[in-house]
Amino acid sequence: MNALTTLRILGALLLFLAAALLVPIPFSLYYGDGAAWAFLLAAAVSVIVGAVLFKTCRSVRDISVREGFAVVTFGWTVFALFGALPFLFSGAIPSFVDAVFETMSGFTTTGSTILTQIEGLPESILLWRALTHWLGGMGIIVLSLAILPMLGVGGMQLFKAEVPGPTADRLKPRIQDTAKLLWGVYVLLTGAETALLMAGGMSFFDALCHAFATLATGGFSTKNASVGAYDSAYIDWVITLFMFLAGVNFSLHYQALRGRLREYWRNEEFVFYLAITLGATVVLVWLNQGTVYQSLADNLRFSAFQASSILTTTGFGTADYEAWPVLAQYVLIFLMFIGGCAGSTGGGMKVARILLLFKHAHVQLYRLIHPRAVRLVKLGETPVDKEVMQSILGFFALYMGVFVTASFLMAALGMDLVSAGASVIATLSNIGPGLGSVGPVDNFAHVPALGKLVLTFCMLLGRLELFTVLVLFFPTFWRK
Amino acid sequence: MNALTTLRILGALLLFLAAALLVPIPFSLYYGDGAAWAFLLAAAVSVIVGAVLFKTCRSVRDISVREGFAVVTFGWTVFALFGALPFLFSGAIPSFVDAVFETMSGFTTTGSTILTQIEGLPESILLWRALTHWLGGMGIIVLSLAILPMLGVGGMQLFKAEVPGPTADRLKPRIQDTAKLLWGVYVLLTGAETALLMAGGMSFFDALCHAFATLATGGFSTKNASVGAYDSAYIDWVITLFMFLAGVNFSLHYQALRGRLREYWRNEEFVFYLAITLGATVVLVWLNQGTVYQSLADNLRFSAFQASSILTTTGFGTADYEAWPVLAQYVLIFLMFIGGCAGSTGGGMKVARILLLFKHAHVQLYRLIHPRAVRLVKLGETPVDKEVMQSILGFFALYMGVFVTASFLMAALGMDLVSAGASVIATLSNIGPGLGSVGPVDNFAHVPALGKLVLTFCMLLGRLELFTVLVLFFPTFWRK
Repeated sequence: MNALTTLRILGALLLFLAAALLVPIPFSLYYGDGAAWAFLLAAAVSVIVGAVLFKTCRSVRDISVREGFAVVTFGWTVFALFGALPFLFSGAIPSFVDAVFETMSGFTTTGSTILTQIEGLPESILLWRALTHWLGGMGIIVLSLAILPMLGVGGMQLFKAEVPGPTADRLKPRIQDTAKLLWGVYVLLTGAETALLMAGGMSFFDALCHAFATLATGGFSTKNASVGAYDSAYIDWVITLFMFLAGVNFSLHYQALRGRLREYWRNEEFVFYLAITLGATVVLVWLNQGTVYQSLADNLRFSAFQASSILTTTGFGTADYEAWPVLAQYVLIFLMFIGGCAGSTGGGMKVARILLLFKHAHVQLYRLIHPRAVRLVKLGETPVDKEVMQSILGFFALYMGVFVTASFLMAALGMDLVSAGASVIATLSNIGPGLGSVGPVDNFAHVPALGKLVLTFCMLLGRLELFTVLVLFFPTFWRK
Repeated sequence: MNALTTLRILGALLLFLAAALLVPIPFSLYYGDGAAWAFLLAAAVSVIVGAVLFKTCRSVRDISVREGFAVVTFGWTVFALFGALPFLFSGAIPSFVDAVFETMSGFTTTGSTILTQIEGLPESILLWRALTHWLGGMGIIVLSLAILPMLGVGGMQLFKAEVPGPTADRLKPRIQDTAKLLWGVYVLLTGAETALLMAGGMSFFDALCHAFATLATGGFSTKNASVGAYDSAYIDWVITLFMFLAGVNFSLHYQALRGRLREYWRNEEFVFYLAITLGATVVLVWLNQGTVYQSLADNLRFSAFQASSILTTTGFGTADYEAWPVLAQYVLIFLMFIGGCAGSTGGGMKVARILLLFKHAHVQLYRLIHPRAVRLVKLGETPVDKEVMQSILGFFALYMGVFVTASFLMAALGMDLVSAGASVIATLSNIGPGLGSVGPVDNFAHVPALGKLVLTFCMLLGRLELFTVLVLFFPTFWRK
């Protein structure tokens, strides 16, 4: 591990963060919310630390896989630490742990909040929350489609064929190319959603903040009652549509924009994802009809919204699903573990992994009956490498291991059984709200400080596909 | 699939069951409990059906893997159906579904009961409940150590090297050899426990019934309050010890009896199993001290008993663990998913699978840091074949899939969220009691009939390592 190279790149990232911290300033001045200086000060701190790191740390030309892991993990951590400064400086979130929790929740596109009163906060602070989502989502797209495959992490190796091997020289231009194209799609969709939300009567400010949070599958809203505050079927459906789109592999959107619409249907993960979304909605409508909702139109609207919000791990709310029938809650818990497609901004285990897991089980059963038959697990037309299946097994084991350990810690800190498990899955899968005391109409304010740190770590672990963070805990990682 | 051969073997199994059904008759006559005729009638029915099947169905010499699956799955099913007859005939359990649930719970060594009043039942009926456990446990030892490896099922392939390939001719004597040796150990341990329990003041009848249920990791007691009814530290500790022993691979006990005691320590699964048992006990003692128990001796006794009972999937109870601290309950839920060692009578996912899962994850992380290093997953000194890892992945996926589907069905039948999940894990892992409305001081009587059938199927699935049962649902399985 070359520490100096890593520090230099972290310095560069801090300079980028400083630039992002300037964005809310014009909004602050326009609304006169008095928080502009907090952003200016935060940007100044970031520039100084960033510049010192960037200037003083020599860089070597060859960046190895190890520096890759360190940069990704520490990059997100540094963003959460320095991105928390405006919350602290403005007094919006006085506690350091709370501010870091909120910022990590933003950058990891989780959407869990420790705020009990969102309305009335300075507009620039609300925008910054949404912006952390949006930047985090941007980072995730590049991470999952360009960087992680090169580091050889998890199920992301599915996309390995699309990118070159882990040599530093060829890597850089390719990342930039991929990034530019995908970010173009990301910006385009954000613009489209903002326009559509404004057409539904939202202010530009609210529309922009919600579009940021939707495309990143984040979930921070500018309202206490989340999207439910607008009480508009039109707005609900627009956001449902864009949540669904944000949960799709962004390279498919890119293909679609180039006119290759049929790529959606040729992508087995997308088809399965669509089937889960529709299937879950139908089941929820069936369960809620006559019990929670009398009107079918209302039922469809609220069921589809909640299903998409949980499946894509966005976490927006328009209904208190804890008041739904038990079975409907069960459907939502089930969706919590699935998450979005690989290469989307959605979290969770990813649709592709679940799909491959069951295809694998099917092939295993088949081979018991036909021991001599050769039958491979395929995704679409492509046979899936055994190494990928092995990495999914590893991912699954780690996911369960982290879930069990973290839930235990949360229970040890005094949370009840359901809330302990739900708070971990809500953060580890980057969803936002959970069940119990961290349900859709609650927040994370009451969680003990140590618990907030555990959950903050869960957000990071989940967002970076576990492996990326956990390798840093190997002593051999740090040896020359 | 050769249906006639399968039916002929099932006929032979029914003849064996008929013989077993005669065992409670002398007890019935001795106690004058009036249920002797129920056993005689049940034995007669079994003999007639068995003889007809055995005589009329021609057998072919070559038994293939497919007939193996069919015989195992249908064998257990036939035992549950015909073994239920004494309950029905004697009127002890008037409902057919309830009687089948209870009998399947017996033969799969689960221990979940639909009986609300156990004391006062005819002694022969109580003995039959215990005997179904004991025979089921005997079946499982041979199944997991001799038959399943030949069928190529699940993590049991670990033992593949110890048995010959799936050719019918060489198979038969080998199964018989293995069976005889292991059953010798099983009988010896049962006798030892019976004697030790009698030394503690239990009647021969109660001691025998509890020894049957312990060695099979079953859990049926002759008392309403389970083992807690005896309120004896000595009895608790004897049963704790034998539950622990029953959760160990029986081939290790065989080696130990031949003087090779060190085989225990050379077996990594055993060491891990011991560590889990001790670790869980220590954590439970720590959590319960001062909150539930004031005396350390009591605390140790009850904590160790409950930990062993749940981990080994026995399901005996001496304490209402739902009144324990939440965190202690969490430890028990954690143990529920693990289960006993491979080759023991314990259920669950098995210690070996969990161990390999985490070793695999560790190797995966290691390989991310050292991409060129060759590092294999090992169990003890032996590298684990990639096929075994693949089969564990398949097992894990199926286990989770069955858990989610069955819990959903139970919730659909009106059970609350915790009870729905707990009833499934309690039966799928062959534990017995769960949490919520099927907790340690409750029973399964209130579960709707359809739910009882779902749970009965879960017992079968869990006991036969999923694959064995699920292959029968493939249409190609039935084609010639």
